[in-house]
Amino acid sequence: MPIKIAVLMESRPGEKRVALVPAVAEKLSKLGCSVSMLSGAGLASKLPDNAYNGVEIAGTEQHLLADADIVLAVQAPKASEIALLKPASILLSFIYPHKEPELTRLLCEKNITCFAMEQVPRISRAQAMDALSSQAALAGYYAALMGATTLSRILPMMTTAVGSIRPARCLVMGLGVAGLQALATARRLGAITEGYDVRPETKEQAESLGAKFVDTGVDARGEGGYARELTAQEKDKIASVVTRHIQQADIVITTAAIPGRPSPKLISKPQVDGMKLGAVIIDLAAEGGGNCEYSIPGETVTQGQVTIAAPLNVPSMLAEHASELYAKNLLNLLQLFVVDGAINLNWADEVLAKTVLTHNGEIKPEAVKTALAKH
Amino acid sequence: MPIKIAVLMESRPGEKRVALVPAVAEKLSKLGCSVSMLSGAGLASKLPDNAYNGVEIAGTEQHLLADADIVLAVQAPKASEIALLKPASILLSFIYPHKEPELTRLLCEKNITCFAMEQVPRISRAQAMDALSSQAALAGYYAALMGATTLSRILPMMTTAVGSIRPARCLVMGLGVAGLQALATARRLGAITEGYDVRPETKEQAESLGAKFVDTGVDARGEGGYARELTAQEKDKIASVVTRHIQQADIVITTAAIPGRPSPKLISKPQVDGMKLGAVIIDLAAEGGGNCEYSIPGETVTQGQVTIAAPLNVPSMLAEHASELYAKNLLNLLQLFVVDGAINLNWADEVLAKTVLTHNGEIKPEAVKTALAKH
Repeated sequence: MPIKIAVLMESRPGEKRVALVPAVAEKLSKLGCSVSMLSGAGLASKLPDNAYNGVEIAGTEQHLLADADIVLAVQAPKASEIALLKPASILLSFIYPHKEPELTRLLCEKNITCFAMEQVPRISRAQAMDALSSQAALAGYYAALMGATTLSRILPMMTTAVGSIRPARCLVMGLGVAGLQALATARRLGAITEGYDVRPETKEQAESLGAKFVDTGVDARGEGGYARELTAQEKDKIASVVTRHIQQADIVITTAAIPGRPSPKLISKPQVDGMKLGAVIIDLAAEGGGNCEYSIPGETVTQGQVTIAAPLNVPSMLAEHASELYAKNLLNLLQLFVVDGAINLNWADEVLAKTVLTHNGEIKPEAVKTALAKH
Repeated sequence: MPIKIAVLMESRPGEKRVALVPAVAEKLSKLGCSVSMLSGAGLASKLPDNAYNGVEIAGTEQHLLADADIVLAVQAPKASEIALLKPASILLSFIYPHKEPELTRLLCEKNITCFAMEQVPRISRAQAMDALSSQAALAGYYAALMGATTLSRILPMMTTAVGSIRPARCLVMGLGVAGLQALATARRLGAITEGYDVRPETKEQAESLGAKFVDTGVDARGEGGYARELTAQEKDKIASVVTRHIQQADIVITTAAIPGRPSPKLISKPQVDGMKLGAVIIDLAAEGGGNCEYSIPGETVTQGQVTIAAPLNVPSMLAEHASELYAKNLLNLLQLFVVDGAINLNWADEVLAKTVLTHNGEIKPEAVKTALAKH
């Protein structure tokens, strides 16, 4: 019996990605798996059913999930979908357990082994499975484009018959994968770019992309490649240096998201109020409430003459490539436990051990267990 | 008595530009002119009243226009505004007389000397007054950004932990000022770019921007820097070569606009139907009905899996810079007839003679006179 893999139809509002692309479907077949999905599951990613060679199109969700050994998804399945999963099957998906704690409980009740893609550890060996990074790179690129189309000025210097237009200034706050890609894209478009991050080691990375680094003298390196939370004093010190840079900028892109926690407020209301007329903020940390005090997640607001956009699920705007990278991340994780046509969960593997959310009816990460116990 | 210049408040839907920017206001003062405008006229271009040093804020439209010797505008004034103009005063504005023929008659009745900015001849001496070109450059830049944000793929090659993403293909049809700027911008973003135009001399220009030129073997050079209208045979020949390039592209940007005439249909419905899933067309010729048979001016439509955007008044999306360049174009034209604090219309000047639409109660360009007589 081959391992049966099912791909969920994404149904959350605005979600255009899909957890499987044709190239990955072929690799799964070669691994000895049979793959099935619902008709149209790839369409929002511009992937019609007939693009998926060798994938079976299931007639109903029930048929799709009833005997699936492994289920692939982008967003956390809904309770009604979890109810249809085969007991003790394996699920690979983004979960973010704090958002809908009841889902994690349902996964435990069903004995599902769930790998939460946002938990993939940030170690070299796991880079090819790091979906947060692959999606963040796309989000950073798109944020720069959003900034450019929202601004009523052009980014590059332009020499015309009536004189030169000066290039725009773009400040990127938070130089992780998304921030660096935003810097690179704004620079490609001809902007003068500045990068800012509390982790001093990002200076070199920003500079390698042609950006100036805003040095505030505060070191905020934290665990797991994320910035740690800052003290009030540190925040004040940073604010005083950064305010000047914010207020000189035409576009500010913020990317300081901490999975599972509220996004730090990097831009205060008074800072926005002192910005240039017509300036634009693109806040990529909207899922956690946003990095700007004026941000309203999912909306674009105008405050005075400043436009603040806080889009949700930005990778979905680039669904074709986002799905491609995500599906490859899933494949790489799956290959850690699908070997020679059989499932073999080796918990000595750090990547599996750190990514697993539920197994044998238990929530595995202590932090999640503690957090959900409070609900 | 100084020459009195009035700046109209733009009131057409979606128009964010303004005919005067602070730097030009200062120059007009130095030329010995007094300048007035209505409160808030620059606001949509991010220019508050207090940015305009030395400009008087008029209380009402009547006060603004009653004794103005020269009136500056972006879009053609409405009939109610023309009614308020001082008889025999001078108007500088885009007009496009075929759109609202009654406006040109009203200008004649009022004895207005109207310079229609779309008529500035395309000769070297007039480059600094060429508002069509200055606005087209901005539109071309914006079209490439629109293409990039509408496409659900990224433009540049990107190397990730799970492999490389191939760069997108962008075809630009019509290599005037807008088309070349679109090519340059798509290239900056990392796309593989191709340019196509019926005028063979554009080959070198496209190639200088890193684009491949689509050579169809048809020479369609026309008068005044515009492409001439093509025969059916020529169109067929072009279509057969171009179809292949259209159908390989991720983004197609079309820019073949002929002022005062319907835009040529460069992309047929069958050509669109054969395009790649998820491909995007940005049609910059929407004012004249569009270059694509599926285009609906002012709308974004989805046909099969192809998205066709035909935006109107694209320069207005970049209002700050569009106003800056346009105001400078106006200033340069104005300096041809405002000399030593006096107005002196020298009709021996080719630029003035070709740009004038109405003077002494008459429509001056023969073509316009003939066209409007038919109404």
